[in-house]
Amino acid sequence: MQLAPSMLRLINEFSKLPTIGPKTAQRLAFYILKTSKNEVSRLSDSLLEVKEKVKYCQICFNISEEDVCPICKDTRRDSSLICVVEQPFDVIVIEKLATYKGLYHVLLGNISPLEGVGPEELKIKELLERLKGKEAKEVIIATNSDVQGETTAIYLHKLIQPLRIYVSRIAYGIPVGGNLEYTDEVTLTKAIEGRRAM
Amino acid sequence: MQLAPSMLRLINEFSKLPTIGPKTAQRLAFYILKTSKNEVSRLSDSLLEVKEKVKYCQICFNISEEDVCPICKDTRRDSSLICVVEQPFDVIVIEKLATYKGLYHVLLGNISPLEGVGPEELKIKELLERLKGKEAKEVIIATNSDVQGETTAIYLHKLIQPLRIYVSRIAYGIPVGGNLEYTDEVTLTKAIEGRRAM
Repeated sequence: MQLAPSMLRLINEFSKLPTIGPKTAQRLAFYILKTSKNEVSRLSDSLLEVKEKVKYCQICFNISEEDVCPICKDTRRDSSLICVVEQPFDVIVIEKLATYKGLYHVLLGNISPLEGVGPEELKIKELLERLKGKEAKEVIIATNSDVQGETTAIYLHKLIQPLRIYVSRIAYGIPVGGNLEYTDEVTLTKAIEGRRAM
Repeated sequence: MQLAPSMLRLINEFSKLPTIGPKTAQRLAFYILKTSKNEVSRLSDSLLEVKEKVKYCQICFNISEEDVCPICKDTRRDSSLICVVEQPFDVIVIEKLATYKGLYHVLLGNISPLEGVGPEELKIKELLERLKGKEAKEVIIATNSDVQGETTAIYLHKLIQPLRIYVSRIAYGIPVGGNLEYTDEVTLTKAIEGRRAM
């Protein structure tokens, strides 16, 4: 394969991105080749701009271009309710529902001994400070339902309980529209455990 | 959804790329956020570098960083054989086989009246010049087997035949390992038409 070295470099850079395999990387590089220089500059600038401008909110550690993010600033939101998530991306997922009106706290990770990530690497200390000082009445733990997310949830529960704040965990169960037949055993067990009166 | 404006811009730029839907664009943007500034600069630079350095080979219109591409320069290749393809990407696909030892000619598109692309937009004039001046004995037309690729192939065949050069078309048929049962009717018809003595 005789390919221009700069193309090979671009393909290589693209393949480092998540969900981009070698074939897609190639396709993207050829797309860049065909695209106007202006368009490509816009993408290239956006990449650098994000690295320059985006920081973490000083209160909740969601991403923000200001010191305090628009969600934390919004006085119409219910500050007695704090939803704890692993990543800034999770905030977007929940915000899209447009049904949650409380605040957030982003841990920026999960407890993962295998990857050498302990509680001190996460924004847990900051969460506890926040809970001590403020009017929080409930903390909803919305970490993922994998091993690391669960570990993190249990750890947080132990820490927060002594503060006399109600700690809840988002529900496990069958997805809406889901079929019992195709539900894995662990989920089904959790769904039965978590049953509610009709 | 309250998201930093620079993140929204990056997500928007990513979604313009082929095969990147809105969800992947979001995921990529968050990946960029987590990636070191050095890494991001490398991607950003590669994008611009490709636009600056890569041009088309003056002979075959494959992409190249030099005026004449390494394939055209390679004297060990069989210059009596020219394989005509639609896009530079197709050259890579064929080169990967490592079995074809002739030269290429890239049309940079196909004849597509619906999109307003006529023969004069493609590198067809340049192909004919090349065939007249040189020792070419066979032209293999390897355009795609869709309507535009077929139209282009038929058009080229008509133009090249008077030059007393052998014009061939890559074979249609059942893919190797393919099953008759799952082959579409058009392909199967072509496969029977194109049958060869065993």
